[in-house]
Amino acid sequence: METPTPFQSSPENTHSQIMQASYEALRKHGYSNLTIQRIGDEFPKSKSLIYQHYDGKDELLVALLEFLLEQLKDHVPTDGFDDAHEHLQALIDHALPASFESEHTDFMGAVAALRGQAPHDDAYREQFAKISEFHREHMTDIIRDGIDQGVFRAVDPEQSAAFLMTALHGARNQRVTTGNDEPIAALRRELFEYVQMRLVIDTENG
Amino acid sequence: METPTPFQSSPENTHSQIMQASYEALRKHGYSNLTIQRIGDEFPKSKSLIYQHYDGKDELLVALLEFLLEQLKDHVPTDGFDDAHEHLQALIDHALPASFESEHTDFMGAVAALRGQAPHDDAYREQFAKISEFHREHMTDIIRDGIDQGVFRAVDPEQSAAFLMTALHGARNQRVTTGNDEPIAALRRELFEYVQMRLVIDTENG
Repeated sequence: METPTPFQSSPENTHSQIMQASYEALRKHGYSNLTIQRIGDEFPKSKSLIYQHYDGKDELLVALLEFLLEQLKDHVPTDGFDDAHEHLQALIDHALPASFESEHTDFMGAVAALRGQAPHDDAYREQFAKISEFHREHMTDIIRDGIDQGVFRAVDPEQSAAFLMTALHGARNQRVTTGNDEPIAALRRELFEYVQMRLVIDTENG
Repeated sequence: METPTPFQSSPENTHSQIMQASYEALRKHGYSNLTIQRIGDEFPKSKSLIYQHYDGKDELLVALLEFLLEQLKDHVPTDGFDDAHEHLQALIDHALPASFESEHTDFMGAVAALRGQAPHDDAYREQFAKISEFHREHMTDIIRDGIDQGVFRAVDPEQSAAFLMTALHGARNQRVTTGNDEPIAALRRELFEYVQMRLVIDTENG
């Protein structure tokens, strides 16, 4: 499982450096204790450059959120699979691995912290609506492919995709907002059971 | 479907009045723009009383969260059902009704706003761990009852409960953080399909 590492190496350009500094500060301090001052502490250049680009904490954090969600998109497994069933299993493994590395929970925690702004702030909500749409469409395509390939039953692809995405989102969000790792194993078993029971055409015993 | 209305009428005692004022202020302003000043604006007594009881915004909001989660518990449908299947359907309808009233989305939005603090603040995380545990146990009991009553298959009750709770949480959280009502209908259909396919023993045609 590929852990999201939003910043592979020290970026050179100012925009990427501001994003990296904001991410580090958010990871360390959470949303409520985050200040431009603290972002500045993580930034290798003059803090005044941050103020030149962004009007305040939330404008900067919405830009960070957009940046992080783009990283999420780039890391979604898209090819190299024998069929849609293998693709779907890889996607579930990617979103909900048997155990999370700390970089991964840090990343999910940072996104979950920004998600708390979404109920009362359009700019954040718009970003979350966009990523949720992206994931749902991607999952729908995989299920549709599986039906075309004859490995999945003729379900309603959008309905099953909405269900799977929601369960994956719920599991990831709960993991970082309850700190409880324990239900993950049971959840994964039931998700794979659901896929097997609802989607997969059993060619061996069917 | 019973909408959560945390404050049925104007409360008399200071603690309940502080809770109500905090809830109103959170609903209106969200987390980041919330100040003790703004909570004071909703409070019928002297603002200094708030400072006497709470050291700051987060201490007050954790108390509000605990209060709101107690309300959630009190509203969970617990009896008056013919069997566990009817009980489970009522619970799903309660958590994820076909359409949400605005009081309900306001409530979910307020809780989701506080959830954003959980990844970086133990006190919030502890509250969310507690409520998630409560819901999972309640759901497990219903599924176990259903197995005992002979209406549900002999599944692993904890595993199915974890899955259902996670899907419901994911749906509610996505609803208020994306603003998108649209996937709810598809989700509900698939949740009920899952219950039927995975849990219910079909006595008419089986």
